[in-house]
Amino acid sequence: MDTDFLQIPLIDHHCHAIVGPNRQADTEALLRVTSEAPHGYPVEDLLERAIWPAVLTYVSRYSGHVVASYEELGPVLQDVDYATYCKALFHDARFEQLFIDTGFAPAGAPSLGEIGRLTGAKTRPILRLESVAEAVFKESSSFSQWWESVQFKVGQARANGYVGAKSIAAYRSGLALHGVSYADAERAFAVWKSSDSARLEDERLLCFLVWECAPILAKQSLPLQFHTGYGDPDTDLRLGNPLHLRDFVETFTPQGLAVVLLHTYPYHREAGYMASVYDGVYFDTSLIVPLGLTSARRVVSEALELAPYSRFLFASDAHTRPELFAIAADLFKDALEHHLQDPMLSRFSGAGTRERWAQLVCHDNARKLYLETSP
Amino acid sequence: MDTDFLQIPLIDHHCHAIVGPNRQADTEALLRVTSEAPHGYPVEDLLERAIWPAVLTYVSRYSGHVVASYEELGPVLQDVDYATYCKALFHDARFEQLFIDTGFAPAGAPSLGEIGRLTGAKTRPILRLESVAEAVFKESSSFSQWWESVQFKVGQARANGYVGAKSIAAYRSGLALHGVSYADAERAFAVWKSSDSARLEDERLLCFLVWECAPILAKQSLPLQFHTGYGDPDTDLRLGNPLHLRDFVETFTPQGLAVVLLHTYPYHREAGYMASVYDGVYFDTSLIVPLGLTSARRVVSEALELAPYSRFLFASDAHTRPELFAIAADLFKDALEHHLQDPMLSRFSGAGTRERWAQLVCHDNARKLYLETSP
Amino acid sequence: MDTDFLQIPLIDHHCHAIVGPNRQADTEALLRVTSEAPHGYPVEDLLERAIWPAVLTYVSRYSGHVVASYEELGPVLQDVDYATYCKALFHDARFEQLFIDTGFAPAGAPSLGEIGRLTGAKTRPILRLESVAEAVFKESSSFSQWWESVQFKVGQARANGYVGAKSIAAYRSGLALHGVSYADAERAFAVWKSSDSARLEDERLLCFLVWECAPILAKQSLPLQFHTGYGDPDTDLRLGNPLHLRDFVETFTPQGLAVVLLHTYPYHREAGYMASVYDGVYFDTSLIVPLGLTSARRVVSEALELAPYSRFLFASDAHTRPELFAIAADLFKDALEHHLQDPMLSRFSGAGTRERWAQLVCHDNARKLYLETSP
Repeated sequence: MDTDFLQIPLIDHHCHAIVGPNRQADTEALLRVTSEAPHGYPVEDLLERAIWPAVLTYVSRYSGHVVASYEELGPVLQDVDYATYCKALFHDARFEQLFIDTGFAPAGAPSLGEIGRLTGAKTRPILRLESVAEAVFKESSSFSQWWESVQFKVGQARANGYVGAKSIAAYRSGLALHGVSYADAERAFAVWKSSDSARLEDERLLCFLVWECAPILAKQSLPLQFHTGYGDPDTDLRLGNPLHLRDFVETFTPQGLAVVLLHTYPYHREAGYMASVYDGVYFDTSLIVPLGLTSARRVVSEALELAPYSRFLFASDAHTRPELFAIAADLFKDALEHHLQDPMLSRFSGAGTRERWAQLVCHDNARKLYLETSP
Repeated sequence: MDTDFLQIPLIDHHCHAIVGPNRQADTEALLRVTSEAPHGYPVEDLLERAIWPAVLTYVSRYSGHVVASYEELGPVLQDVDYATYCKALFHDARFEQLFIDTGFAPAGAPSLGEIGRLTGAKTRPILRLESVAEAVFKESSSFSQWWESVQFKVGQARANGYVGAKSIAAYRSGLALHGVSYADAERAFAVWKSSDSARLEDERLLCFLVWECAPILAKQSLPLQFHTGYGDPDTDLRLGNPLHLRDFVETFTPQGLAVVLLHTYPYHREAGYMASVYDGVYFDTSLIVPLGLTSARRVVSEALELAPYSRFLFASDAHTRPELFAIAADLFKDALEHHLQDPMLSRFSGAGTRERWAQLVCHDNARKLYLETSP
Repeated sequence: MDTDFLQIPLIDHHCHAIVGPNRQADTEALLRVTSEAPHGYPVEDLLERAIWPAVLTYVSRYSGHVVASYEELGPVLQDVDYATYCKALFHDARFEQLFIDTGFAPAGAPSLGEIGRLTGAKTRPILRLESVAEAVFKESSSFSQWWESVQFKVGQARANGYVGAKSIAAYRSGLALHGVSYADAERAFAVWKSSDSARLEDERLLCFLVWECAPILAKQSLPLQFHTGYGDPDTDLRLGNPLHLRDFVETFTPQGLAVVLLHTYPYHREAGYMASVYDGVYFDTSLIVPLGLTSARRVVSEALELAPYSRFLFASDAHTRPELFAIAADLFKDALEHHLQDPMLSRFSGAGTRERWAQLVCHDNARKLYLETSP
């Protein structure tokens, strides 16, 4: 890869917290973050995935000890100075900012401030709508109380430092969102309240939540991210096709809401199409890059077949382990550079244009989308 | 690219009219035809798509003036001799014939005869079924009157010079077509008549129209094209998967109807599969080639994984601007040549065979399908 | 291709019988097995597919006579010593074992023992559930009698030498399997019994069959294969997406059932995702490799984007003609080698690791999955 290309700073617009030094030698955690498989998935299969030797390579490089197998990992990770190790991984990959979805954090995760110190990157939080809804559920005795609390928290998001919001509707009832009346939402809330569960799963209430929060976010110039496509098996991949967001996108992007499609694989072509015809639609190929090591060049190129370079963003969706952030960054830059060397692109576009497109994707788009609030 | 390859003549079996000299300097029109985005889509995003520098390159080459930006475009386009400019673009790309869908034409489009003179290519019209249905709607007071007029116009198509028909059902109620009774169609017509709209949108009536016109077309050896896959956001991409045409294809291809799947992206593999198992199914990758500049090699290769070379056709789906036709042609030929140099193909197939396959795809298939009528 | 790579032995975990010497010169059979098209599909289109010149090349190589066209094929095939011809084809491609789905066999197919002698490979049978259900249907006067016979035959499968089972539910009512009550199945059986057909087509009864056989197979450590994705047009490709198996997989793999997704194209990415998150899910890219000659490198690479190398298997799905087995094997090895030379893979994984992954995919996974029964 071209050295200059490696130097481009990154804003990671979708990621999660890493663990602190108390879990620095948790080797199973490191193995398990290389896949979206749940805990019962066999270790022996995880070791037979293309990404695993890459993990060992990064640990070797940053620990200064050659680690050739899973078994050799623990002592080496125990031995490193975690702060130095993290700082080097994030520095070499040129992470400038991390936008952290606080809706999921690994056990033992330090504060965002501490993560900033460990990584040398500026950290900013993303507000997960379903987490807000569930957090205030416990303390709400009525629907109106619950809904007022949700609106208040979401309405204060920008003021409280959040740079965006996120919905995991794809993990619950799917992306075919639609408007739901206040009365229907109230009835659904009553059923939820009478259940034993604190988990928001009702299709109508999820639709009500996301649909009604959309204008509240638009008013604050806060983009709304959606989990789409691939993830852990808790998601039904048939319901996670971003094309299901058609009504939502056609309703709210004209009102100024920016909609960000996360992950998108294996629907990244569909996502690129959406970005190419709808104003206000953005997307990434996080998660598959890095977890699908050999996919990166192909997937990034496919994602960019139709989309403007002003609508595609780098993200890692990494969490728990610092190594995954570095692998995501390096794979992504290799894939982006490969794409920008496409024979047809090179035939018509100058080096300066392609360099600028790389800057857009790596950081400028994220900065404009999340940090430059329109009045 | 091999020089001989560039010389292969093209029949463009699906395209639209170009504008006349009165709009030769309409630079926003040129920018907007590089994408399927509707009018509200930001100019700044259109400028950040891979195809845009290719457009500037073609204008520079054929105007004789280096055009480095959108702003510089207007005066240069104003200055060219439009007839010479068009003729050169179409001649160099070896357009021999243009089959023009007259159901959509840009404002200021000249006659087919005039387009023939501007481009140096023979032009032939394609009849859009929904346009016929809507045109005779205004003058029909009853369902029977309407349906007789539709049947008459469609039944006279070949005699009136049309070489094929087209349906845009995918843009209305989707491709899951099925038979509808006369009585049900009559009821749907009454609802339409009592509405304020001249636009045919009722699912039953659309199905009735296409289903009942199919044998009328088959009798005239007129192929029926379908918009499938990607297009402007008026189409719900979930309903445009050509696999939804299964019942239609299984009903009418045994009756001699040729079904042509247009565009097909991102369902081009599904379309290639259909061409490989159903007699009478043809397809193309128009629209994505050229609009997805960097997609061409990959998409054409994927489309041809299963399909016979006797079932795949070149088309541009270009309209409004002559530059887009030339870009479509050159990208397509590059992609086709790239595919034909596939290591497995080269290992087993001689140069002569591969050359013949290129001829089939570029013109022979279209000639046989549209112009050689069986008795 | 690397010579050592060509030497890796193959277990073909999904294929069918070949014809005996009595059909050795059936050239139309050879042409027709190059595609999934039904019999009415035109010969002239089959001759224009990329695989056809490969077939001629293999016949030429193993007959010792240059065969340049379809017409020249018959006399040459008539002239070969069929036993020697078969043995050489299977030997050079290093077929060690063939797991044969006995639910479909071409006319004139010899016994599995005879196929073993012709090919030099060990043959083992796979039990097709729908064939069992239809075979005992004729002799069953009541639902309970039918269901007891089915259970008995399936329960004796391992003892009778079967190494796995297979379902073609995708060809009937689709893969969205669900549990069905005994009473509902009994009612469906009555309707079937009162019909004229011996073909099991009722959605409820198919679901009942597969759902209730699953634990019987799990108890014997017999994997259950599913036809998924592409096949002849009898299958509705919309219903053959392996994602529809979600409930089935989540119900039975925790009970120890291994689920094997056959073919998977064009849903091979979805299949790879499933293998990466569900314990007990395996898959292949048979059928498209070899029938989609130019697809092999791309499809195998896409299939392996997420999947562990311990879950992906070689298969040909070949039948009738020995030439197809050899083409499948050679194409697959070329594609697998190409994948293992991916720049990112090479950067992080040593040659030894990649060689071991090739061994897993070519034979070790199949041996462990089908032949090593847990107690």
